Amino acid sequence: MSPIQHTHSFRVRYGETDQMGVVYHANYLNWFEMGRTELIRGAQISYRELEERGVLLPVTDAVITYKKPARYDDQLEVRTIVEELTPVRLTFRYEIYRMPENELLVWGKTMHVFTTRDLKPIRLSRVEPELYRWLEMQHRGES
Amino acid sequence: MSPIQHTHSFRVRYGETDQMGVVYHANYLNWFEMGRTELIRGAQISYRELEERGVLLPVTDAVITYKKPARYDDQLEVRTIVEELTPVRLTFRYEIYRMPENELLVWGKTMHVFTTRDLKPIRLSRVEPELYRWLEMQHRGES
Amino acid sequence: MSPIQHTHSFRVRYGETDQMGVVYHANYLNWFEMGRTELIRGAQISYRELEERGVLLPVTDAVITYKKPARYDDQLEVRTIVEELTPVRLTFRYEIYRMPENELLVWGKTMHVFTTRDLKPIRLSRVEPELYRWLEMQHRGES
Amino acid sequence: MSPIQHTHSFRVRYGETDQMGVVYHANYLNWFEMGRTELIRGAQISYRELEERGVLLPVTDAVITYKKPARYDDQLEVRTIVEELTPVRLTFRYEIYRMPENELLVWGKTMHVFTTRDLKPIRLSRVEPELYRWLEMQHRGES
Repeated sequence: MSPIQHTHSFRVRYGETDQMGVVYHANYLNWFEMGRTELIRGAQISYRELEERGVLLPVTDAVITYKKPARYDDQLEVRTIVEELTPVRLTFRYEIYRMPENELLVWGKTMHVFTTRDLKPIRLSRVEPELYRWLEMQHRGES
Repeated sequence: MSPIQHTHSFRVRYGETDQMGVVYHANYLNWFEMGRTELIRGAQISYRELEERGVLLPVTDAVITYKKPARYDDQLEVRTIVEELTPVRLTFRYEIYRMPENELLVWGKTMHVFTTRDLKPIRLSRVEPELYRWLEMQHRGES
Repeated sequence: MSPIQHTHSFRVRYGETDQMGVVYHANYLNWFEMGRTELIRGAQISYRELEERGVLLPVTDAVITYKKPARYDDQLEVRTIVEELTPVRLTFRYEIYRMPENELLVWGKTMHVFTTRDLKPIRLSRVEPELYRWLEMQHRGES
Repeated sequence: MSPIQHTHSFRVRYGETDQMGVVYHANYLNWFEMGRTELIRGAQISYRELEERGVLLPVTDAVITYKKPARYDDQLEVRTIVEELTPVRLTFRYEIYRMPENELLVWGKTMHVFTTRDLKPIRLSRVEPELYRWLEMQHRGES
């Protein structure tokens, strides 16, 4: 089975464009972050609550491939999956589509570690076992 | 005497422009913040250290007047003064100039209260009397 | 009658917070811009199309009052009205609410002129009379 | 010989932090862009002039590795080299250091194509041969 895809819709804001007339390339990382926030919302615990309990997911690596530019007011979708999961690391994969054309604009990945508030590494499987099991199910495609 | 003006130079970044071909208007608030950070650096204590000691300066009001647009790669100056100061409140005034033309582009103000980390109001004159006296001198124009 | 209010819902993104643990104050200007984009979408012409036809609405002044901080993942609403309208100028007024508490966090205004792509002033009532009439109806509260 | 490294110094702004208390990860892409702007400034033509002549450098790919977090008010350096150059493509490599400790925080790459204003690919060696030769010298480490 393949990972469960979570979809989140949004529009491009004016301030996200640059003088090239298209979206400034750094903004896609913000949209990836929206994608993983919305993915995790499907669990019993939101990413916000997770942080309030003292678990952070800092980004250790990011890769982005830009195929076509998004433009102001475009209706977009970010589609997010859990691509890899271990007790200490997590990788999300994202695709950004223009709708309703369903045209792939950008894809990318972000790699994360689980840490305390002081950015010390922890094992998610130990500190938040329920969330860990839920993420495993997203990764394996079991619902 | 008039307040002492602190000047900080910087260049416009590409990502600060929008599809109008000029700087997106929200960025001037970031530049105002650079202006007050650099003003306070002149004191014995930096704004960063102030926060580490538990004193925050959240913004309560902001006003901005846009006269001419800044553009990518423009060499700019933000000139900052302490316009008003009481034991519980502080107002900065800013002007943004394009250099070397010395052309006024934008001016504005931000009003602040002094608070704890939990955003509870405090009297700066009591918790940081030295910084308070230094700010008074900036405001009165005494060096 | 009072102006017609347009409501747009959205969530706070992680990157919109700062180390104070709340939303960085400049981001409210981005949300105001979302508010006016969504207001204008109710007309026959979107703001995007308006720009494509060569009419821009640069901001000339902005005022913002911050009452309570928004936080990461808060569900917010921006409520926008046309506060003033003349053939050459337009003022929007915005309120940002936290939902479902319906708690007012921030309010503000942005003033705009109508210009060509080269930022030369124009009369909207002449170049886009239909949009001008529609904005008048929003302002007067006639639907 | 190895590529010539261009260094640009700057400070972290408050609005670049997030509620984790460190710099939000998307901002490094903005700093990379400052790095390449400053690198190109060493040529006879600035990146701004290049765009005014109709040559753009959109980003096609980006990779970033985050080793240690930058914090508000840190004094940073972005060090940039031309890692790869062909008549149609250009790759920059960046390292972000905290100073004066000279501590490597983040490194990354951005890949670019040369295009017209309409984002059509062009050969830089043909349209801007002088700039192309200068970039070759930066890449080869000839000064």
